[in-house]
Amino acid sequence: MAAEESSVTYQQLSDLEREFDDVETEIIRQQVLLTQPLFEKRQSVISQITGFWPLVIEQAPPDIDEYIQPTDSALLLNSLTGLSVEHFEVETGGDPRSVATRFEFAENEYFEDRVIEKKFWYRRAAKDNWAGLVSEPVDIKWKEGKDLTEGLLGLAKAVWDEEQAGGANGAAKGKKKPLTEKQKALKAKIDTIGLGGLSFFTWFGYRGEPVSAEESRIATQEEKERRQRRAAGEEVATPTNNEEEEEEGDEEESLEIFPTGDQLALAISDDLWPGAIKYFTQAQENDDLSDANFESDEDIEDAELPESEDEDERPSKKRKA
Amino acid sequence: MAAEESSVTYQQLSDLEREFDDVETEIIRQQVLLTQPLFEKRQSVISQITGFWPLVIEQAPPDIDEYIQPTDSALLLNSLTGLSVEHFEVETGGDPRSVATRFEFAENEYFEDRVIEKKFWYRRAAKDNWAGLVSEPVDIKWKEGKDLTEGLLGLAKAVWDEEQAGGANGAAKGKKKPLTEKQKALKAKIDTIGLGGLSFFTWFGYRGEPVSAEESRIATQEEKERRQRRAAGEEVATPTNNEEEEEEGDEEESLEIFPTGDQLALAISDDLWPGAIKYFTQAQENDDLSDANFESDEDIEDAELPESEDEDERPSKKRKA
Repeated sequence: MAAEESSVTYQQLSDLEREFDDVETEIIRQQVLLTQPLFEKRQSVISQITGFWPLVIEQAPPDIDEYIQPTDSALLLNSLTGLSVEHFEVETGGDPRSVATRFEFAENEYFEDRVIEKKFWYRRAAKDNWAGLVSEPVDIKWKEGKDLTEGLLGLAKAVWDEEQAGGANGAAKGKKKPLTEKQKALKAKIDTIGLGGLSFFTWFGYRGEPVSAEESRIATQEEKERRQRRAAGEEVATPTNNEEEEEEGDEEESLEIFPTGDQLALAISDDLWPGAIKYFTQAQENDDLSDANFESDEDIEDAELPESEDEDERPSKKRKA
Repeated sequence: MAAEESSVTYQQLSDLEREFDDVETEIIRQQVLLTQPLFEKRQSVISQITGFWPLVIEQAPPDIDEYIQPTDSALLLNSLTGLSVEHFEVETGGDPRSVATRFEFAENEYFEDRVIEKKFWYRRAAKDNWAGLVSEPVDIKWKEGKDLTEGLLGLAKAVWDEEQAGGANGAAKGKKKPLTEKQKALKAKIDTIGLGGLSFFTWFGYRGEPVSAEESRIATQEEKERRQRRAAGEEVATPTNNEEEEEEGDEEESLEIFPTGDQLALAISDDLWPGAIKYFTQAQENDDLSDANFESDEDIEDAELPESEDEDERPSKKRKA
């Protein structure tokens, strides 16, 4: 191995990775289009199995399960009637990595909503070329004294609305205005409560990096142009965070009530959603094994399980709630 | 929620999953074709970086790393000059999930081979409808006293060759002939050595379920027909293992020297191979952080690292071997 001088740079490797990303993104688009009829078929099949989604959630992989507290679990098991994931930008030629998650609930003691929907947009930031999923806080109409997020979600939504109305230090603007009263209140609440062990429903407050659709469109275009110019031999640097901006980023993060919300979104859209039948089947097998007649026995029978035809033994569906 | 009677069965859910598999398989085929030019481009870029693959291996994810013993690690770091994965059945219209892995080595103290290649075929078994990766033992020309598999690999290959020649109880035939001398010797060696903590190179002995190409072709066709007939309303059962067959399966597995070889193949083909630049970059970052001037400093400089231009400081590439 003669150690010849090579001119390979990190930038070249990184550009090559972006080329792979571009191809992967197109493959995801194809995948979404090709599997869509199957997901519709699946939807019509599993809609005949009441209790399908609660059982799927019960078998959720660790990167989802870790966020589901015992009270969340009881609520989801008793009231979750539907779940769906849509790659909503595919139809309009947008990014196939953007996803909308939709949770449907039966009447329950915690909140008034029958549907809670949260959208995640795949975006790129101009300032540091960051790319990933961003979202907007979604409020939940908690019943009196039943707010599982202890007020965090409502406050996060109020802060967001205030920013959108232009009254507050829009994080996207990057200006160092002092915090508003609402922002201060949110920050204080986060500091007091901490973000460990919070309800799954806090996730609906995730916002992520403050990147608008317009900024992302421009940043994506600029990124593509930089790569083309580098491929043509020009030296063009990719923008990166400087330290001052990093600090500001920290400030932003302190108003984030679910910092890993993008990862949880991915775990739901790329694992739980496509793997739902696998998880449901696992739940049934565990159920058969433990013979514990867990929640939703009625529903399991609806599914004509070969091994559990004990029609007479139907304990109450309610568990500790 | 009125608990209406539903007629959804496990079989329906399972058939739906197979439909998803079929679409996914076509997507993998597209992905292989679309990314092929990029992988070729990557190959030409990383071939200019000596020490690329050893650094990738060093950062291998846990499901690969757990099989790399300290001696394997030293050997790979000092001698691995190339790695490639090919979905070799795509060109002939075969299964895109079949993969060939090819390892290239420099002169080393352990074996004579410069190239060790192992192929995995995606196949379906007729008897129980099992589907997955199968392979054939690949021998390595160990230098005197340097066999890292303690003779297991050579014996596994000898047993395989004997079976192919028809002299032994071909596992695929399912006949209960007594074990041959070679099979007995392999079984005894496995029982003595155990399969924990064995060399990574034992993996080249993996064989998996004994399913021939012809059996798989027929089983795949039959599986498709069963699904079509069920979709048309017929009741058609899927073949499953009966207990006697299970026992026989155990017998087979006792002649397997690397039972999880299919999982390791998947981890290499679906994670290490596509993620190589990511792992290489991680290795570089760790190297920069630890400032330990790990193995292959020369090579790192070849890559024109922005932060490590200490050209004079070149410790020996050899580590403890």
